[in-house]
Amino acid sequence: MYKGIIRGNIVSTRKQESLVGSKFMEVQLIKNGEFTNEYIIAIDSVGAGVGETVLITVGSPARLALHNENCPVDAVIVGIVD
Amino acid sequence: MYKGIIRGNIVSTRKQESLVGSKFMEVQLIKNGEFTNEYIIAIDSVGAGVGETVLITVGSPARLALHNENCPVDAVIVGIVD
Amino acid sequence: MYKGIIRGNIVSTRKQESLVGSKFMEVQLIKNGEFTNEYIIAIDSVGAGVGETVLITVGSPARLALHNENCPVDAVIVGIVD
Amino acid sequence: MYKGIIRGNIVSTRKQESLVGSKFMEVQLIKNGEFTNEYIIAIDSVGAGVGETVLITVGSPARLALHNENCPVDAVIVGIVD
Amino acid sequence: MYKGIIRGNIVSTRKQESLVGSKFMEVQLIKNGEFTNEYIIAIDSVGAGVGETVLITVGSPARLALHNENCPVDAVIVGIVD
Repeated sequence: MYKGIIRGNIVSTRKQESLVGSKFMEVQLIKNGEFTNEYIIAIDSVGAGVGETVLITVGSPARLALHNENCPVDAVIVGIVD
Repeated sequence: MYKGIIRGNIVSTRKQESLVGSKFMEVQLIKNGEFTNEYIIAIDSVGAGVGETVLITVGSPARLALHNENCPVDAVIVGIVD
Repeated sequence: MYKGIIRGNIVSTRKQESLVGSKFMEVQLIKNGEFTNEYIIAIDSVGAGVGETVLITVGSPARLALHNENCPVDAVIVGIVD
Repeated sequence: MYKGIIRGNIVSTRKQESLVGSKFMEVQLIKNGEFTNEYIIAIDSVGAGVGETVLITVGSPARLALHNENCPVDAVIVGIVD
Repeated sequence: MYKGIIRGNIVSTRKQESLVGSKFMEVQLIKNGEFTNEYIIAIDSVGAGVGETVLITVGSPARLALHNENCPVDAVIVGIVD
């Protein structure tokens, strides 16, 4: 998993039907307490907003955090760091 | 997931039978609003064309966006960014 | 799999319900006996603590090390290096 | 998926039984029309040879291109680029 | 898949029960005939030893090479290069 800070959201009107209602967030990864140049786009599952530091799960396990496990999704925000 | 801009398409006549009819697009990734040197080849599932900015899902979840889930595909365009 | 040293833990109160009780550790990867600049956040499954050198499994197989295989988890500490 | 050019093949006599008969090709990846320093070893599924430009699927979906889906394989050549 | 040379093994007494008996090898990756700075820890499935050049499968397909497919393992040595 990765830690990162939500830098913005991405709006996509024309998308896969199973993604309707998903919030796409662009997250800057943080490693060892420092901001990196790596960015991931993840779907929020915990009510996180821009500026919050979050935990992201990537790959096939990510969509286990969503209600619809048939979503074509590879990155989900699964926690907010205190 | 990744954001990127479609730079071109790739034609492959001799390919796996389950891939016949797929549109292969070469996509330049965009991170934090800047073009990167990273490129992925993804199959389109939303009617996207060259020059459009899109969302890509990679890995095992990608093919959930296709009608045939037995396709050997690891990257699919799942949305067009507004 | 990767070898790494646990550098700290991460506290997340607001998270996916299936992650409640998980210990999130930030691990600095070690390659060829040298510390790298790569960091992964992994869930502990073997009682490892800060400062210990561990083995991490990433991706979809990682959660096979947990009791709940439906966790949205992509990295788990599966062993402590002697 | 990736585009690349087949640079050579790899011979392995002692291998997993399910891999007997597989052709292992070393492929140099091409991004945005330029050769990169990235190389992947992939199993051929379309009759491709050294010097041909091909499409490669990686990860868990790759083995969907093979007759035996229980092969421990993470990269397969799924098309030849025209 | 990757090609690499086995540089050493890693001993872990305290580990996941399903990993007991596994041989963990540190492998330096070889690309285009040259040693790289990339290292992976993989479980041996073909009787390979230190100094041998091997093929490694990574990710979810890796554990298909093991007798116990429920192992939390993401990299397995599946062949020895001639």
